[in-house]
Amino acid sequence: MSVLLRVQDDDFKVTPWEVTGRVDYERLIQQFGTQKISKDILNEISKISRGKMHVMIRRDIFFSHRDLDLILKDYAEGRGFFLYTGRAPSLGMHIGHLIPFLFTKWLQDVFDVNVYIEITDDEKFMRNQDYTLKQTSEWAHQNILDIIAVGFNPDKTFIFKDTEYIRNMYPLVTSIAKKLNFSQVKATFGLDASSNIGILFYPAIQIVPTMFEKKRCLIPAAIDQDPYWRLQRDLAEPLGYYKAAEVHSKFLPPLASSDGKMSSSIPESAVYLSDQPKTVEKKIMKYAFSGGQATTELQRKLGANLNVDVPYQWLYYIFEDDDSEIQRIASEYSSGKMLTGEIKKILAQKVNQLLEEHRKKREKSEEAYLRFLYDGKLARQMWERVHS
Amino acid sequence: MSVLLRVQDDDFKVTPWEVTGRVDYERLIQQFGTQKISKDILNEISKISRGKMHVMIRRDIFFSHRDLDLILKDYAEGRGFFLYTGRAPSLGMHIGHLIPFLFTKWLQDVFDVNVYIEITDDEKFMRNQDYTLKQTSEWAHQNILDIIAVGFNPDKTFIFKDTEYIRNMYPLVTSIAKKLNFSQVKATFGLDASSNIGILFYPAIQIVPTMFEKKRCLIPAAIDQDPYWRLQRDLAEPLGYYKAAEVHSKFLPPLASSDGKMSSSIPESAVYLSDQPKTVEKKIMKYAFSGGQATTELQRKLGANLNVDVPYQWLYYIFEDDDSEIQRIASEYSSGKMLTGEIKKILAQKVNQLLEEHRKKREKSEEAYLRFLYDGKLARQMWERVHS
Repeated sequence: MSVLLRVQDDDFKVTPWEVTGRVDYERLIQQFGTQKISKDILNEISKISRGKMHVMIRRDIFFSHRDLDLILKDYAEGRGFFLYTGRAPSLGMHIGHLIPFLFTKWLQDVFDVNVYIEITDDEKFMRNQDYTLKQTSEWAHQNILDIIAVGFNPDKTFIFKDTEYIRNMYPLVTSIAKKLNFSQVKATFGLDASSNIGILFYPAIQIVPTMFEKKRCLIPAAIDQDPYWRLQRDLAEPLGYYKAAEVHSKFLPPLASSDGKMSSSIPESAVYLSDQPKTVEKKIMKYAFSGGQATTELQRKLGANLNVDVPYQWLYYIFEDDDSEIQRIASEYSSGKMLTGEIKKILAQKVNQLLEEHRKKREKSEEAYLRFLYDGKLARQMWERVHS
Repeated sequence: MSVLLRVQDDDFKVTPWEVTGRVDYERLIQQFGTQKISKDILNEISKISRGKMHVMIRRDIFFSHRDLDLILKDYAEGRGFFLYTGRAPSLGMHIGHLIPFLFTKWLQDVFDVNVYIEITDDEKFMRNQDYTLKQTSEWAHQNILDIIAVGFNPDKTFIFKDTEYIRNMYPLVTSIAKKLNFSQVKATFGLDASSNIGILFYPAIQIVPTMFEKKRCLIPAAIDQDPYWRLQRDLAEPLGYYKAAEVHSKFLPPLASSDGKMSSSIPESAVYLSDQPKTVEKKIMKYAFSGGQATTELQRKLGANLNVDVPYQWLYYIFEDDDSEIQRIASEYSSGKMLTGEIKKILAQKVNQLLEEHRKKREKSEEAYLRFLYDGKLARQMWERVHS
């Protein structure tokens, strides 16, 4: 591995397993050696989407990439591509977990391509001695219902649990495993000699879906995941596949601080997809880190610091799709015309609106479950294939 | 791991991946901490087999064990047990490879128990960068035909390739993998930081069949394999399974030397199951290491040293089942009445007899193939189960 695996200076730190401090994304791009999403690329995508650009790409949340230009070229020239994302199942999914899925769904709508969603129940189980297979299996099921609710095309989306799909993947997994040694996965995944052999092996399983088709694979993910895919990019071509392309997002700040990334291990910092309206309102009103001033008088006089204000960032990142509306909020809040309580109320309303819609769609997920996992057009094809 | 993983002194060395020198089996038992097969155990097995003891147990080839007494107790008290052996597929199988299968088949006949035979095509492929999956898959097929020819009960034997059966094993594999770390498999399997992650993971796959039934599992294998099973014995009970029992064989000496063990990587030292009669005769006459004297005159006068004579040892180990006949050969050859050329001829004839029978049975293997792998009574049950 010639590339840098972590970025750390006095102000912030980004590794695939830790994000702390106030991230300097420009510096991250330089250090990771990725590319900024250029105006040309944005124009190209805008043309294909007929001007209806997703808020996350309009607002620069997805800001960096590898080979996204080649993906667009493959698309333009008829070779096509496919999308791959995944999830390590957990007890509950929070808003931050939705980001790659929402964006992936949008990409599927725009480009009409296959999406593969790997549920890494094996990795989750092996990661923590306290977890049982029964737990991780139940989490997987519940998370899949949330993912289905995002609205993927059931005939072009294959959601699979590693423990179930392993037989179809395993020959290709062995080919990949053979190209990775302990030293490499140790450095990239932050493992050591006390790490269990399942976790050491897991990178091969994570890489396999990038080779599900003989097309380029695009992975939407937060930028901290980039080092994982460098292993894939080192070994893909010798095995006869494309290097994985990536499109990287910034981190949604946790509710209680404008630093780091949202983590489900700090419950008050996250809004769960299962949170009821009252809970959401309470969490936002009580915990959301504010860039506003300490008193109404000071706020009227000085206005809020948008750069550290979490309610504003959440609205900007995800919840306020309307550009003129977000500009109005920015202007009024930073000038002191809008108070902290007011922007928090706007956010709470928007979050509850999304969660309300999500819950409605999720109620129908159970009946679509078999289609995404086994019976849909793509799923049926995938179960008939053994990748080798 | 508190137990010793290798035995090495000035004269010999035994690790799971290397056997050199003249092995002192008594010392090996002490150092490995296994048990000698006692008279009591032999009597017990003799009762069950109605006095028809297999040559390999009569002649002390299978000489050491772990928990074989408990296996017999479980059998006597109706709890039963099962047998497990396996094979890393290779281009050709030689006579030495047959030993555990011949003995396992005999145990199946005597105790009427299930046999599981793991074909480790995954491990073989990942072990060597030069191998392709196509090669290891073809080797697996050919080796399975040889194994079927040994004569196992098709309704109580399940032969499976790891790459195919992985999905059914994988949940339990993850439970085992979780209990083994890099340091442990490094020490036990002779791996290091440059080892690929597939090989690091493989021990979990090798252990899983010991837990296919909630009964004690008996593994017939050469004693150099013992350290592998110590990992299983350390983790089995916390996972709710029995510690694997083992019955250990000595090593069949290679044709060209009385030291070490037969290896298929030195072609002239091995007799392959596919060798034609002329080839067998030529190999034995030309290469078999002799304990006889350099000239006929000296042989007549001094006789042969049976301890280093490979033709005698092969006859004793496997090929001359008749106790009075092997005694006659021993007496005549050690006294000088029999010449080296004569004992070699006897061996060649015996080897060709076994190979002739093997080839006949192997011709029928192809039609029994599906039964052992998919359609037999046990195979069908196994494909319906997911082990977790």
